[in-house]
Amino acid sequence: MALIVHKYGGTSVGSTERIKVVAERVVKAKKEGNSVVVVVSAQSGMTDKLIAMANEVNTDPHGREYDQLVSVGEQISAALLAMTIQNMGHKAISFTGGQVGILTDSAHTNARIQEIETNRVADELDQGNIVIVTGFQGVDIHGNITTLGRGGSDTSAVAIAAVLKADLCEIYTDVDGVYTADPRIVKDARKLEQISAEEMLEMANLGAKVLQSRSVEFASRYNVPLCVRSSFNYEPGTMIVQETDEMEEIKITGVTLARDQVRVNVFDLPDKPGIVAKIFKAVAVEGVNVDMIVQAKNARGGPDLSFTVEKAGAKKAQAAIEQITSELNATAPAIEENMAKVSAVGIGMRSHAGIAAEVFESLGDNGINIEMISTSEIKISCLINQDKAEQALRVLHSHFNLGEEPAKNA
Amino acid sequence: MALIVHKYGGTSVGSTERIKVVAERVVKAKKEGNSVVVVVSAQSGMTDKLIAMANEVNTDPHGREYDQLVSVGEQISAALLAMTIQNMGHKAISFTGGQVGILTDSAHTNARIQEIETNRVADELDQGNIVIVTGFQGVDIHGNITTLGRGGSDTSAVAIAAVLKADLCEIYTDVDGVYTADPRIVKDARKLEQISAEEMLEMANLGAKVLQSRSVEFASRYNVPLCVRSSFNYEPGTMIVQETDEMEEIKITGVTLARDQVRVNVFDLPDKPGIVAKIFKAVAVEGVNVDMIVQAKNARGGPDLSFTVEKAGAKKAQAAIEQITSELNATAPAIEENMAKVSAVGIGMRSHAGIAAEVFESLGDNGINIEMISTSEIKISCLINQDKAEQALRVLHSHFNLGEEPAKNA
Repeated sequence: MALIVHKYGGTSVGSTERIKVVAERVVKAKKEGNSVVVVVSAQSGMTDKLIAMANEVNTDPHGREYDQLVSVGEQISAALLAMTIQNMGHKAISFTGGQVGILTDSAHTNARIQEIETNRVADELDQGNIVIVTGFQGVDIHGNITTLGRGGSDTSAVAIAAVLKADLCEIYTDVDGVYTADPRIVKDARKLEQISAEEMLEMANLGAKVLQSRSVEFASRYNVPLCVRSSFNYEPGTMIVQETDEMEEIKITGVTLARDQVRVNVFDLPDKPGIVAKIFKAVAVEGVNVDMIVQAKNARGGPDLSFTVEKAGAKKAQAAIEQITSELNATAPAIEENMAKVSAVGIGMRSHAGIAAEVFESLGDNGINIEMISTSEIKISCLINQDKAEQALRVLHSHFNLGEEPAKNA
Repeated sequence: MALIVHKYGGTSVGSTERIKVVAERVVKAKKEGNSVVVVVSAQSGMTDKLIAMANEVNTDPHGREYDQLVSVGEQISAALLAMTIQNMGHKAISFTGGQVGILTDSAHTNARIQEIETNRVADELDQGNIVIVTGFQGVDIHGNITTLGRGGSDTSAVAIAAVLKADLCEIYTDVDGVYTADPRIVKDARKLEQISAEEMLEMANLGAKVLQSRSVEFASRYNVPLCVRSSFNYEPGTMIVQETDEMEEIKITGVTLARDQVRVNVFDLPDKPGIVAKIFKAVAVEGVNVDMIVQAKNARGGPDLSFTVEKAGAKKAQAAIEQITSELNATAPAIEENMAKVSAVGIGMRSHAGIAAEVFESLGDNGINIEMISTSEIKISCLINQDKAEQALRVLHSHFNLGEEPAKNA
């Protein structure tokens, strides 16, 4: 008998009709002889509704009370799912994070799981219950309700699977799994049977929003077999696995696209130590994340600096830097909008030389100009004009033959 | 510095506007130098909304999951009130019944409070916090959420006041206090400054739905100074107090009316032991509460039995008895609808002879026929035709001069 953890997101439990579908899936797993733990998110829209209520009385509520309020969302889903399963004639019991002993630190609205007690869940499983646990939340050592931040339900599921030493943790969502590229853009994008955790992390950070990064790290660290699949059909999903030698044979696993990138250029800076640090500190203070960075000496000897940020933070970043450049009597920063980032990800890069060159060449051959480049051990990202974004994604997908099943032991 | 417990019902916290009004009242009490604990109900309509969601998936949910679901209603009110108070620049913290240590038995949906820990609340009060606690709920010894049944928030407030040895427990509702009669019926009904707990219990049972009976018993047993007042104005309310000698001087404290009573008549029963017991057992099995009972021998020597039930249970009671009378070949039971019960309540009855006679006489003088009579040490109830109900209430109110302030040491 296997122990399986299912996790269902907000759209999967978004209505009583959807909850019934989830209940059937859970009961099926139970009937197949498994012990089943289910982690649920709040119904889609519920958390926003609760936040709207809070904002009517306080536009900046303290974290503790915020958590006390929004945590009811998952409690509602969990209780409704338990009732639905009971109505089908099966045993089920629902728990809040606190009841089941999910202990976190006290960082309200963005807490981290520290420890999970297993006694209560194990007891209820032994008694034949399907155990339903609220995702996204726990309690701190003082019994205060904490939440893990948006997307934290994935992490809850993986953490529970880890402590229970589950045989499988299935994350149910509204997509079928992880694809070689976004199927809405690349017609022959192929669903991956498996992907390494490291690649999944890169893909998640690069815009493939299937799984929360923290949950992938967690699964990787505690060796939890993790699977992403759809709650809307019974297709197999994508397994997130430990890296194997076989995987190294495949040059590129997938390509991703992040739109609406903005490049900020600061030219002719004074060539003194500490100037660049000052600039990034000013941007960080504004809470804007910087992605790609290029610094180079120009013909006049002064350093030119370019970096990318997401569109939402561009104006803030620019304003922060303008203050500095005006103090330094340097050129005011300029921003270039309508940029996009295409990336190729694959652990095969480590052992295959020349993949970067292949990426640049295939883009160049198709008339796509590369504005900036950034690389890691297992990914290559290129900043390009947004008009060419979809074309670039298709070019790379095709160049690396991602639409075709890779030959085993190639 | 006094310790005060406020309790606000569903209409008092029914909107964010109403919550702001409550927050002002609470902060006012705090500013006056008191330590303040606030017990809140779910927003009016919220519990019904949650129950409707449950019924979509399961028309008869298990009590445990039902409690797990509906308890979020108070959690939402409590967190919103805390946020509102914080927004006004004051310290506040909200707790669920479980967090604050309200331990109950495991009778889901109708649990009884067994114990309340005081450490957490006392600590937070010491730190200058206004402490907000969800009413209506607790946890059992296994950490399962339990609810106290409808109206249980009053009991939560009184119980918390009792363990904290509070100087005052104020129950805020949508009425100003306890009146000598329903002011919608009796124009000169007068709000009582005080009423004895025993009288309050009789009034509550007789239809004056201001406080939940259990909370009055609790307050009386643990000597909690209890007050009922309106959250919609700053008028003083009614104090529920221990009986004093002075109160004995007043013949009648108030009169009440319960409508839609039904009389069930079973005539010519066989004159054998155990028959009457059999009849009431059959009615009890149907979950129907019997109120007034009269048994008398008729001219033919057989016992005639009459009793009253509320309209909602009348048909069930009749059907239950029909089975028995048909087995006994006795007359089938008949029901008389459109009856009402007027009652006069006052601890002065104990020491004043002839009050029953005054009641009967004043009704008779006004052409109101009495169909049945039932008395206790401190109340006299008369069943009458519903058409005369309001008139009867006014007659009694006027006869005992309840519209006038009683002379002290009369």
